[in-house]
Amino acid sequence: MGSPMRGRCVEVVFVDDLAPKTEDITFDEERLKAKLSLMGFNGVFFPLKVLRKLPKLLRENDFKVWLILLKTESGWEVVEASLNKPKKVLGVAVDLGSTGIAFYVYDYLKSQLVEKYSILNPQIEVGEDILTRLHFARKEKNLEYIRKITVEAINKELIKFGKDEVFYLSICGNTVMSHFLAGLPVDNIFMEPRSPVVKDYGIRKAEEYQLDAHPLARTYVFPSVGPYFGGDIIAGLFYSGIHRKEDGFYFFIDVGTNAEVVLGNRDFLLACSGAAGPALEGGIFECGCQAKPGAITTVRITKEELEYQTLNQEKPVCICGSGVIDLIAELFKAGLLSYEGKLLPNFMKERFKKLEDELVFIVAFKEETSHGRDIYIKESEIKSFLRSKGAMHTILTLLCEKVGLSFEDIERFYIAGTFGNHIKVESAVTLGMLPKQALYKAEGLGNAAGEGALKFLIEPNLDEIKHILRNTTFIELNKEPRFMELFAGSRFIPVE
Amino acid sequence: MGSPMRGRCVEVVFVDDLAPKTEDITFDEERLKAKLSLMGFNGVFFPLKVLRKLPKLLRENDFKVWLILLKTESGWEVVEASLNKPKKVLGVAVDLGSTGIAFYVYDYLKSQLVEKYSILNPQIEVGEDILTRLHFARKEKNLEYIRKITVEAINKELIKFGKDEVFYLSICGNTVMSHFLAGLPVDNIFMEPRSPVVKDYGIRKAEEYQLDAHPLARTYVFPSVGPYFGGDIIAGLFYSGIHRKEDGFYFFIDVGTNAEVVLGNRDFLLACSGAAGPALEGGIFECGCQAKPGAITTVRITKEELEYQTLNQEKPVCICGSGVIDLIAELFKAGLLSYEGKLLPNFMKERFKKLEDELVFIVAFKEETSHGRDIYIKESEIKSFLRSKGAMHTILTLLCEKVGLSFEDIERFYIAGTFGNHIKVESAVTLGMLPKQALYKAEGLGNAAGEGALKFLIEPNLDEIKHILRNTTFIELNKEPRFMELFAGSRFIPVE
Repeated sequence: MGSPMRGRCVEVVFVDDLAPKTEDITFDEERLKAKLSLMGFNGVFFPLKVLRKLPKLLRENDFKVWLILLKTESGWEVVEASLNKPKKVLGVAVDLGSTGIAFYVYDYLKSQLVEKYSILNPQIEVGEDILTRLHFARKEKNLEYIRKITVEAINKELIKFGKDEVFYLSICGNTVMSHFLAGLPVDNIFMEPRSPVVKDYGIRKAEEYQLDAHPLARTYVFPSVGPYFGGDIIAGLFYSGIHRKEDGFYFFIDVGTNAEVVLGNRDFLLACSGAAGPALEGGIFECGCQAKPGAITTVRITKEELEYQTLNQEKPVCICGSGVIDLIAELFKAGLLSYEGKLLPNFMKERFKKLEDELVFIVAFKEETSHGRDIYIKESEIKSFLRSKGAMHTILTLLCEKVGLSFEDIERFYIAGTFGNHIKVESAVTLGMLPKQALYKAEGLGNAAGEGALKFLIEPNLDEIKHILRNTTFIELNKEPRFMELFAGSRFIPVE
Repeated sequence: MGSPMRGRCVEVVFVDDLAPKTEDITFDEERLKAKLSLMGFNGVFFPLKVLRKLPKLLRENDFKVWLILLKTESGWEVVEASLNKPKKVLGVAVDLGSTGIAFYVYDYLKSQLVEKYSILNPQIEVGEDILTRLHFARKEKNLEYIRKITVEAINKELIKFGKDEVFYLSICGNTVMSHFLAGLPVDNIFMEPRSPVVKDYGIRKAEEYQLDAHPLARTYVFPSVGPYFGGDIIAGLFYSGIHRKEDGFYFFIDVGTNAEVVLGNRDFLLACSGAAGPALEGGIFECGCQAKPGAITTVRITKEELEYQTLNQEKPVCICGSGVIDLIAELFKAGLLSYEGKLLPNFMKERFKKLEDELVFIVAFKEETSHGRDIYIKESEIKSFLRSKGAMHTILTLLCEKVGLSFEDIERFYIAGTFGNHIKVESAVTLGMLPKQALYKAEGLGNAAGEGALKFLIEPNLDEIKHILRNTTFIELNKEPRFMELFAGSRFIPVE
């Protein structure tokens, strides 16, 4: 009888024994609904298109039928009825990031993930950073342009999977990305009084977004809590499961364009976000980059030598966020950096160089790199990093203070994002970015947002997501005088 | 603040004070939803189309907006948002009869019925009676043809009202008519084991039926209880309100193609239908017709003369159902008819004539009629009528017996249909069609089906309709041995 799982976004079921009995007059649809109800499907809607072919289908097939059901806000909708078992039934989760769009293709017949990959977000053409895109989108026709290229980029992939076989889409993105996808004006997201248009997109027909899937396919877009706290974080939290934890307290830390941090459990979720992200991710350094092949991810410095590793063991191209953390921590431990972030050329003097009147430290010499240029870090970049790590530590401290907790009370530090996958926790602790309690309690979640979107395809628990929305309290840093107090002391490297 | 009524199928509301406050970040849609909730609208859905223009609309209009909301299965949908109050907002109730289609146009801004008229059902082109149409529709392309001409006939009227201003349709018809409208196969409705396709059509987008209304308009089609008990009866019951009566017992009698009778109150609804209809309606008599201008509706016979009245005082064309009842009752009282239905030419001999070896009674001579032919009734037709009225009386008796009631216990006899508007209750009682208790307790409801569909536009109480569906028990006459026992004695005119 169909799939063993009940209640995924898409269910493929086989129903038999549907013949009418002479004793009682019943309706084809009514008998089918009664059977489906016994199978756990309630609130089932049949489009006329399906009902029109149902009687013949049943009578030519000994009153048996295969159905494809989709989860709707209020129950289920039967979108296909057929003699034979459907050949391919897919769901697609999309993590709509401002840089990349990640796709997760889930096969409902095999009950497994069959494909997972990323493409570049075509919006980059309009502007690398979100602010440029926001500015561009102020004109109505430009907003429509951004919407169109975004939807077209997704559609190009959907067509590859077989668009009529894609029955569900689960999409998460930050507040701006979700607005772009839906073609909603973004003018008021960051302009006081700030007011994005939509909080909860809910489940809509894919055609409302002009997404090229099955004609009756549905699309779920994760809701936002606010301008800085979007559907990607909600999806990440949904994946992390901290909102379901009954005992203890948990941190969910997502470092993307912003650093978003949530502290809580089943009873409360206290959220905060700060512009700590770019510096931590490595994106804003002259030789920095996000994690990609050739990015320096780890660094080790002894009296004698400096060793580094790159992603995919390729020739170094740049240094990514986790590499920066490692580098700065190693510099400090080796005595080449003061607790205030001042470079100290005590040894390895060949690696220190003046560039435009500023001291820099060379991690990889031009002879070693793929592009033939030095990869280095500037003193000012180190100071900027220390401010960012200070902001991160301050956010963690502030959230704990808000609920009267200390770091000792934290059960687990979940770290999401590509950053979370590569970070050496020890270095982050050395620098005072994470508290020492994180040393044995940190756990990388990978792309929690994308995984959360995928999870929705399999466990579309709207109540859980509503619970997250309802229980989340968002703290704005600029309204917290205590932030500046804490921050002042956190911009240095802790000395034991 | 908009209309004083809340909860009609369509509501037009004005919402103001929607500016975002600096203290808390909220979303345009969220603030609007909060206001609507205070106004009594919960579970509100905004299509992206509306959301896309909302921010600009609000900001160019001092944060005020006019909205049009439609009732959906699970709440409301906002289908229009505008700066100015909408000019015309209509709902259309349609009584889809097998002969005529009645339209009721309701103006939601004026809160009143603005138009009411009927057109002929175009399906008549395919066949006068339902059986011919059912046979025709067995071929898939013929079914599609019937669906198309039916929808086109309705669309032709909708375009006149202004299709983009029609936001809701409420449609009732018998089980076959509803299937035709929805394009559903009718093959199995009357073939054992009987099984129509759909019981409860629910609220759907008008576009699913290809009805030409506002792009987001909704259509409600009344549900059926069974092949003989369709949405027209449900709508009629809904209008009569007997399902809400807390005290006493009530009859709802609808004489159309079939005679449908329901006995009950808030606690139960016992329904029965029989082929009593055509003979009672006058349709199957040689000189018979349904009520129309020139139809003889009342007859009076004294020793000296015969008097009759016609609808609209036009020259007589035919004799309708109520005229037949009157005529037969008067013939009997004058001594021109035996209790068994045998014509007795005791006087007025010029009115008795042999036609093809059968005695007939002339009501109007050819000199008086509009077509220059005699209008008469045949002895065999009288006998056929007596069987029909016997069936009606038997159904009433049977229903009472089923629940241990006598006619004394009946609070009211509601008689629906054009028939119910013209029938002289005294004559019906004389003939033993209605029990003598009906004499002061009968009440004509007019076109209860059409009025019920109209009522839905104003009070879309789905729970009430579900209550009717749930509480209705349908009795099949051919499965009731007691029917034949009772029927045997009821085919005569009662002699005091």
